[in-house]
Amino acid sequence: MSVEIAEMFRRVSHGVYVIGVAAGERRNAFTAAWVMQVSFKPLMLAVSINPGHSSYGLLKEGGRFSVAVLARDQFDLALHYGQSAGIDKLEGQAWHPSPHGVPMIDAGIAQFECVFESECTAGDHRVIVGRVIDGALLDKDKPVLIYRDTGDADGAAMFFPDDFDA
Amino acid sequence: MSVEIAEMFRRVSHGVYVIGVAAGERRNAFTAAWVMQVSFKPLMLAVSINPGHSSYGLLKEGGRFSVAVLARDQFDLALHYGQSAGIDKLEGQAWHPSPHGVPMIDAGIAQFECVFESECTAGDHRVIVGRVIDGALLDKDKPVLIYRDTGDADGAAMFFPDDFDA
Repeated sequence: MSVEIAEMFRRVSHGVYVIGVAAGERRNAFTAAWVMQVSFKPLMLAVSINPGHSSYGLLKEGGRFSVAVLARDQFDLALHYGQSAGIDKLEGQAWHPSPHGVPMIDAGIAQFECVFESECTAGDHRVIVGRVIDGALLDKDKPVLIYRDTGDADGAAMFFPDDFDA
Repeated sequence: MSVEIAEMFRRVSHGVYVIGVAAGERRNAFTAAWVMQVSFKPLMLAVSINPGHSSYGLLKEGGRFSVAVLARDQFDLALHYGQSAGIDKLEGQAWHPSPHGVPMIDAGIAQFECVFESECTAGDHRVIVGRVIDGALLDKDKPVLIYRDTGDADGAAMFFPDDFDA
């Protein structure tokens, strides 16, 4: 992998989020950095997610997702929800279901509930666009966790190629 | 507009970027905040842009775009490239055309050249996904400009609705 290319991409700013998904009784939550606002009217957020993960299927089947914004002092939650699936990551954590059944993480400094709107392919990920139907500001004062400040805690540096595929 | 809703969305982290586009002899560059990485293999970036702006047509016609990451001390460039079209914003600025004719801003701390790959509708914007075919790290030391630190310099707060459209 190229240290130089990884360093370039560290200049693209991302926060750290926990995405909640559910379909029927099945539910999950996972850490993501690739989240951004994409529309004002209506308010929309986009999340880029790996379609190989089971949460992608839950999101598409349930048609909704939640986004919790982690604070700078909540790196432990990023690690918790960044674990591979196979355990119930919501077990013992602070969360509640939205009126539509989506797990909303009761931590972080802001949270949103979204309805799936559109999707496009993006290499090894899919960009999911959701209309924001509800939200809350849970803490007005805490600063957000910035993804680049987590260093290479998620091991992502290894995914950067040696060269651009021009 | 809702101050509370605007404050929630300020917890979603974005940088500040200048996007370059060209089609034939026509070219433009504009300031954007809604940029994120969306794929590792191949490397891809997504940009959410307003399809009502002439730059959208240039991007789609030219099939390419560049992304320059602004540093914390380059707010003046954000304002310059944030002006409405109608003037040649590249005139007198530091930039060069890529081998494919895309204007690359010779400022900022990192830059990327992308080839259009896919697009999805997102309310009043379109999410454009581009494959990154080249890039450079121009300054290893300067911190990036964070969009929320620009306050309401772009007047975006007025675009937040009073309520969620549930």
